[in-house]
Amino acid sequence: MTLTERTELHRLPKRGSHDPAAIHAILDAGFLAHVGFCAGGQPGQPKQPFVIPTLYGREGDTLYLHGSAASRMLKELDGGAPACVTVTLVDGLVLARSAFHHSMNYRSVMAFGTARRTDDPAAKTHALRVIAEHLMAGRWETVRAPYEKELKATAVLAFTIEEASAKIRTGPPLDDEEDYDLPIWAGVLPLQLTAGAPLPDPRLANGAEPPEYVLRYRPARG
Amino acid sequence: MTLTERTELHRLPKRGSHDPAAIHAILDAGFLAHVGFCAGGQPGQPKQPFVIPTLYGREGDTLYLHGSAASRMLKELDGGAPACVTVTLVDGLVLARSAFHHSMNYRSVMAFGTARRTDDPAAKTHALRVIAEHLMAGRWETVRAPYEKELKATAVLAFTIEEASAKIRTGPPLDDEEDYDLPIWAGVLPLQLTAGAPLPDPRLANGAEPPEYVLRYRPARG
Repeated sequence: MTLTERTELHRLPKRGSHDPAAIHAILDAGFLAHVGFCAGGQPGQPKQPFVIPTLYGREGDTLYLHGSAASRMLKELDGGAPACVTVTLVDGLVLARSAFHHSMNYRSVMAFGTARRTDDPAAKTHALRVIAEHLMAGRWETVRAPYEKELKATAVLAFTIEEASAKIRTGPPLDDEEDYDLPIWAGVLPLQLTAGAPLPDPRLANGAEPPEYVLRYRPARG
Repeated sequence: MTLTERTELHRLPKRGSHDPAAIHAILDAGFLAHVGFCAGGQPGQPKQPFVIPTLYGREGDTLYLHGSAASRMLKELDGGAPACVTVTLVDGLVLARSAFHHSMNYRSVMAFGTARRTDDPAAKTHALRVIAEHLMAGRWETVRAPYEKELKATAVLAFTIEEASAKIRTGPPLDDEEDYDLPIWAGVLPLQLTAGAPLPDPRLANGAEPPEYVLRYRPARG
């Protein structure tokens, strides 16, 4: 990963980091990315940004993305267009004594790079496995593996992180000193993505019980 | 809101909608947007997409965004650059019998439009109130209102939704007919953002108790 003006931390640099370990930890804790790319735009016309939510898996500085072979995102990115992949984990609402100092506790990564389509069936299967295991470790081995026609209908992109930055806010509100005596409740309301009880498929006729890895699943871990 | 190729539902149109009521319901249920814009790029060079997580509030087809007056996003968008605002709510992991049919239950909106900075102090205060009340109804009235210098340090953007589409997936996995007899557990693992117990600010010396609107807060409602 390199460092250019794209990931310079303009705002509140104390919240920012270029530490690869911090970046990887956030990418490993999340599972939903918002992928941005610029498309269209006739000569003289501005480009149109698109922001698409998608699942991902990480291997080193590669993020694997997948989707239908017909999807616009995969077609645009396979052309080598610059992309921005952002992952945000919401940790809490920061309720200050003043409107101005309200904030959010969060961890986010903004990663810049380009993507290439993976066509080799073995490499594709490997990438899909990384995505699946990232989402729910243990699942891949227990389900019916992809048929060749399913692999063909699936596009897999390997997005290489060229540079990235992390932003993290933790802790209580930071109010103006003279506001601390105001008779206003202040603090943090923690927020976390949590799993409910598994809902069996209504057509689950085989008496199968939810496996341990489903029952113990904790989203946005880390 | 209009309809052009930008929001044409290419993939799985049965999951998509251009219904303003469906779009507004998702925007009202979420509070975190990922805002995309294209910046930089010398002549002959591709534009760089940026995807920035940010809070928002909705009023009709206007989304209010705010941030530091020095933020890159607000500067870029105030120039009238096309933007894409995407809001995604994760509702569950869809665990199918085959790797191929795994999916996610979610609600998302992709909104296209442009933004303009709001400079009038009264309009700015109104927009900040809309954002604050969207995040936590009841809070704004109880906290110290912004000083003039705080308003000046805050940039407010009014993003007008020109067109938008919603995508929603609900329900159990949809497996290939011949896979239903496989001895594999299948179903949905519901996911929801949930609030924990409020954490009082360590400097809360005034004995204030968390207000009702904090205790009853439910994120991603709807």
